[in-house]
Amino acid sequence: MTSKQSDSDKRKQISIRGIAPVENVATIKKSFNRHLHYTLVKDRNVATPRDYYFSLAFTVRDHLVSRWIRTQQYYYEIDPKRVYYLSLEFYMGRTLSNTMVNLGIQSSCDEAMYQLGLDIEELEEIEQDAGLGNGGLGRLAACFLDSMATLGLAAYGYGIRYDYGIFTQKIENGWQVEEPDDWLRYGNPWEKARPEYCLPVNFFGRVQHVNGKEKWVDTQVLFAMPYDTPVPGYGNNTVNTLRLWSCKAPNQFNLHFFNNGEYINAVCDRNTAENISRVLYPNDNVTSLQDLIRRFKSSTFGQANPVRTSFDTFADKVAIQLNDTHPSLAIPELMRILVDIENVPWDKAWDIVTRTCAYTNHTVLPEALERWPVSLLQHVLPRHLAIIYEINSRFLKKFQNKTNGITPRRWLLLCNPGLADVIAEKIGETWVVSLSELRKLTPASKEETFLRNIMKVKQENKMKLAQYIQEKYRVKVNPASMFDMQVKRIHEYKRQLMNCLHVIVLYNRIKKNPQAPFVPRTVMIGGKAAPGYHTAKMIIKLINNVGRTINNDPIVGDRLKLVFLENYRVSLAEKIIPAADLSEQISLAGTEASGTGNMKFMLNGALTIGTLDGANVEMMEEMGRENIFIFGMTVEQVEELFRKGYNPRQYYENDEELKQALDQINSGYFSPDQPGLFCEVYNGLLNNDRFALCADFRSYVDCQTQVSDLYKDQMKWAVKSALNIAASGKFSSDRTINEYAKEIWGIEPSAVKLPNPADKGSAKED
Amino acid sequence: MTSKQSDSDKRKQISIRGIAPVENVATIKKSFNRHLHYTLVKDRNVATPRDYYFSLAFTVRDHLVSRWIRTQQYYYEIDPKRVYYLSLEFYMGRTLSNTMVNLGIQSSCDEAMYQLGLDIEELEEIEQDAGLGNGGLGRLAACFLDSMATLGLAAYGYGIRYDYGIFTQKIENGWQVEEPDDWLRYGNPWEKARPEYCLPVNFFGRVQHVNGKEKWVDTQVLFAMPYDTPVPGYGNNTVNTLRLWSCKAPNQFNLHFFNNGEYINAVCDRNTAENISRVLYPNDNVTSLQDLIRRFKSSTFGQANPVRTSFDTFADKVAIQLNDTHPSLAIPELMRILVDIENVPWDKAWDIVTRTCAYTNHTVLPEALERWPVSLLQHVLPRHLAIIYEINSRFLKKFQNKTNGITPRRWLLLCNPGLADVIAEKIGETWVVSLSELRKLTPASKEETFLRNIMKVKQENKMKLAQYIQEKYRVKVNPASMFDMQVKRIHEYKRQLMNCLHVIVLYNRIKKNPQAPFVPRTVMIGGKAAPGYHTAKMIIKLINNVGRTINNDPIVGDRLKLVFLENYRVSLAEKIIPAADLSEQISLAGTEASGTGNMKFMLNGALTIGTLDGANVEMMEEMGRENIFIFGMTVEQVEELFRKGYNPRQYYENDEELKQALDQINSGYFSPDQPGLFCEVYNGLLNNDRFALCADFRSYVDCQTQVSDLYKDQMKWAVKSALNIAASGKFSSDRTINEYAKEIWGIEPSAVKLPNPADKGSAKED
Repeated sequence: MTSKQSDSDKRKQISIRGIAPVENVATIKKSFNRHLHYTLVKDRNVATPRDYYFSLAFTVRDHLVSRWIRTQQYYYEIDPKRVYYLSLEFYMGRTLSNTMVNLGIQSSCDEAMYQLGLDIEELEEIEQDAGLGNGGLGRLAACFLDSMATLGLAAYGYGIRYDYGIFTQKIENGWQVEEPDDWLRYGNPWEKARPEYCLPVNFFGRVQHVNGKEKWVDTQVLFAMPYDTPVPGYGNNTVNTLRLWSCKAPNQFNLHFFNNGEYINAVCDRNTAENISRVLYPNDNVTSLQDLIRRFKSSTFGQANPVRTSFDTFADKVAIQLNDTHPSLAIPELMRILVDIENVPWDKAWDIVTRTCAYTNHTVLPEALERWPVSLLQHVLPRHLAIIYEINSRFLKKFQNKTNGITPRRWLLLCNPGLADVIAEKIGETWVVSLSELRKLTPASKEETFLRNIMKVKQENKMKLAQYIQEKYRVKVNPASMFDMQVKRIHEYKRQLMNCLHVIVLYNRIKKNPQAPFVPRTVMIGGKAAPGYHTAKMIIKLINNVGRTINNDPIVGDRLKLVFLENYRVSLAEKIIPAADLSEQISLAGTEASGTGNMKFMLNGALTIGTLDGANVEMMEEMGRENIFIFGMTVEQVEELFRKGYNPRQYYENDEELKQALDQINSGYFSPDQPGLFCEVYNGLLNNDRFALCADFRSYVDCQTQVSDLYKDQMKWAVKSALNIAASGKFSSDRTINEYAKEIWGIEPSAVKLPNPADKGSAKED
Repeated sequence: MTSKQSDSDKRKQISIRGIAPVENVATIKKSFNRHLHYTLVKDRNVATPRDYYFSLAFTVRDHLVSRWIRTQQYYYEIDPKRVYYLSLEFYMGRTLSNTMVNLGIQSSCDEAMYQLGLDIEELEEIEQDAGLGNGGLGRLAACFLDSMATLGLAAYGYGIRYDYGIFTQKIENGWQVEEPDDWLRYGNPWEKARPEYCLPVNFFGRVQHVNGKEKWVDTQVLFAMPYDTPVPGYGNNTVNTLRLWSCKAPNQFNLHFFNNGEYINAVCDRNTAENISRVLYPNDNVTSLQDLIRRFKSSTFGQANPVRTSFDTFADKVAIQLNDTHPSLAIPELMRILVDIENVPWDKAWDIVTRTCAYTNHTVLPEALERWPVSLLQHVLPRHLAIIYEINSRFLKKFQNKTNGITPRRWLLLCNPGLADVIAEKIGETWVVSLSELRKLTPASKEETFLRNIMKVKQENKMKLAQYIQEKYRVKVNPASMFDMQVKRIHEYKRQLMNCLHVIVLYNRIKKNPQAPFVPRTVMIGGKAAPGYHTAKMIIKLINNVGRTINNDPIVGDRLKLVFLENYRVSLAEKIIPAADLSEQISLAGTEASGTGNMKFMLNGALTIGTLDGANVEMMEEMGRENIFIFGMTVEQVEELFRKGYNPRQYYENDEELKQALDQINSGYFSPDQPGLFCEVYNGLLNNDRFALCADFRSYVDCQTQVSDLYKDQMKWAVKSALNIAASGKFSSDRTINEYAKEIWGIEPSAVKLPNPADKGSAKED
């Protein structure tokens, strides 16, 4: 037992190589068994389905972790330029299936669970969504992470670990009721807390001028504690890091008290200080910067002595992308660190910052821009305000446009395996990482077998969704009807109200002439309203009331249904989108900067009815005008309308169907127990129709008639559906990230497939 | 791959039998390696000592878990009577070493760490104490858990999982400063959250009278979320459960808001509601009852259908022990559940409760009894108050006495392995579970080799402590001096001030006659004062100031030192007690109900100087009057003194040494920069000496002279030390628990050694 080895030699036994590979069904079963007993401390007599979910999650996590460690070792070794994607929101959804898909172990896990008598789909449903985002902006950040890992970029996501994500939406008597999203209640198997990497963050205090230098003094300190989440690339054994920060009061926080009660209160007050990262809300992130500077300093000179005195190469080694204006305090914070802490001269620091940072603007709505009162900033971050004054208008001289995208792994391979199979039979599987390959499907749009295959998949998806809707919402829908969907945040500019008015028009047509032929439709609307957004919550209530009226009218039968999809979120989107026939993208032209939901529907073969707004325009360019239903005014026409003076009442008077629908709303037709309930909707529209709903209404309704006409010929519909899929290749977030990488960040994607640590043959000495 | 097995047959593959044994050095290294990479997500390049601690902890935890599951399966099968030990405090200290000791894997772990180039003692030091207790009462609960598991009782500890345990004591400029004990900051590897066993707890509301029955309505609901901690017995493969409850706001909590800000505030308010279990403090525990009733109901009839309609056998199957008055609301709560929820008639319920519940009183100080204003109880728990009125004075008719004890595993085997070895060489190892075996050492107190061995161990322990004190407190102490220790909560009745006065007397004697012979002493005092206890905090400041004066006086040299031991806690006790020569147990007779620190010192061979108070009396009975230094008044003499009218000033005037010491304190001798600082100590003592310090002083000082005289003859000292050890067998908590089991709970300890699940040969089919 005596040993002449040095401690560092001995330490070399601590190695990832020593651990058995875990790739096949038998080892997955073994690992699952181990985690159930040893990690969850349960036996099969007392294990619940949630315990089985966690066992599977920990088993899959083991596969991630070995690759994660290897990837970070690899980056350390080759020291590539790092990209930091700063975002206040990362709307990740669920992780289990996505991980199994990207690691290629889905079928092994499936088989292992089957052999153990468990239903993997049931287990997957237990996972809570990571709902750390409001909508498109947050989900885009999540798609980008997937693409950056798949493209082999040394990328880091930096954001906030909210204790409570986007609220759970409950519908009670038609009204939205918000419930806190306590997503961490059962623990989160996908994160690793890193208390050892806590960083102090300063607030308040004042700026002192000492020897011609500025010093920020008398500040209050809080800690930012990072939690790391692995982000696997598809099939390349690369696992990047999403680092989310949680606010933590320092132990020294609030230490003056003279009796037991004051002591108790002081300790409890720590939690109040920690409220900073409690709930998802527009908020600010100034922490991540320090951490990435630490990594920059240590990457070349080693952990032990993290000193790099020159920042000459900083911009060559670091790129920072800001997701909209919310994290824009990163700019003065980086300046502060360089100038105040690292003693870089102002002009050089400014040069570094401008070469390092880039910012993405997502919307043209002024209310979506982050704005802070100067007096508040002066109080909370006086040094940053001083720096902002200096920067003034020097920042952001160059603008360029990047078309957004979505990750084809989650939004096709994972959520629509049937369609993925049909496509793979035709053109192989490379489309998963090169989505433009889908163009090869264009000829197949003329082959009846192919068309029948995609129709069959669509029908299966619709059946499955119909069953889900019946179980969850107790509404029986007709799977042969057209599934007409609008799912997104509830906002006036997105015009869910116009959709609702159209449904009322259809209803009135049936009631007026019950015997006339009618193309059956199931209209589904889903989305959350901000808790304080009164009008949006009113629209939800209206949709639910209209739905109640229509869905219970025997004359209508199964020809028309209107369903409000409660609690729309990433995991619900994965169920809905593959089952859609028609995608509603009907915002007023000039209001939506891009949208990404529209792309997800297109990729899954839904046809789009939409305005010439946001990415609808680029979608049209890709698929051709004849394969999309475009209606309504252009941006120029909208501007013209408002310039000339827009009078919604004029459209109301001249359009009988519009008038009837609005009069019904106003008169209490849909709220007989509270006849005046929806007057404000009526009045709001006729007196201040900010988003020109009345002006676009006729064009919209007539366009919907064309949609119904086409739906009668299922084969023709399928051709357009196929052409939509074939044309959706551009909308991969891989393409977007490729453009960012080359044109903004100055890096090249890497096609290197890292060795699988479990594969003994390829394992390298470590 | 096709299988005809049913799902439940398939499920049988999920079994603890399938997992490899983990008993030897190689498997420990492998498991350690696996946890470092897969659980902690670190490689050796970035791993910190804390990561290595956690890897070892998780490795050891694996050994616990298999036995834990087996034990619970075994209890389920044989359905023994359960004991529930309800306590507001469980002062557990550290878990890692204790677990390795009780599981018998310490040397394997030791060797494994050595082979990996790691220092296991360094890793052990990283563990945070679980400081969920104030002092003796909480530590007794922890010792009892150890003994109950070692005696094979089906026992459960029930308490509160405080987010912040007993504060960390910092000494700044001699003053105590409290810092929150954020013990969960780095995560707790020894607990398993059980969110699936959450229970609702009601507060507020009112009592309604409906059809002659009482109903508690309009209550506010919070959830209690259990966290389970394993409690291993020594060498019997039994692992019991300590279940600690944490307060959790329900998702429906506080759901009315009309703008974003109100929504954010409402979500943050959840944390305020959860403050109930935030900080250790006298508080109440009404939850655990429901849980144990659920287990009673399900134990015989199976989990699936937990209905047992008759409570006839309840008292045969359940015993509940209340640790002091703090959890006494358990009595009306159990009545409420039986009468209101389970519809048991009042008299029968009362019979069940009285046969089930027992209560331990620890102290005779009236301020230590839990007292609640009736108006508060009426508001918070109106139904319980109504029940209390009904119960009135019917409860608690029988009293009996049980001598407390301490667990010999932690307090000898773990903390003093050197002494444990010396004892084992002499009488074998059975004393670990039968401490009365120590009596066999009595003849050895006449053998010089044995005496030299225990002296050698003591000296080694003292050297180690001296080094620790030098490192931590920057005070150099003389390891050849007598280590004179008083460690316990700072409280006037415990009379740390008398100890301090004695040190001043010794100091004055040296100063007066520097050349006279003097038996060198290092006096160490440690303990926390309640944050609001002004006098206790003043005593700490005085001790530190006296220490500063003495320790820096060149005339004194290394003959006398006074060290205040900052932040006394379980893990510090484990270092101090084995190094003690003299144990100070000097509370005023009639004030300390028992004390357990006195037993720990005795077991480790320190001699005791003490009053005839608490367990000192029983210790004297065991060892004989000649082996303990008894001084001061008896309880009767104290009563007599106060009856006749006690005038401390009279003792002051008549005792020159006392007068000099008090005058020095009063005049600012020890606080030259703030001469009036300690006047209040002087005035307090002379005007209101509640604990008759002045009356006992001369007797104490003279007794200390006898102590010093004896210390000059190291061999004679060693004889008494050996006889102390030999006589300490009675003070095992195993003996205490044995008495509780037989005389109160009506159960028999079990000598059954459960099979080791890792031992394939003995594994039973499950």
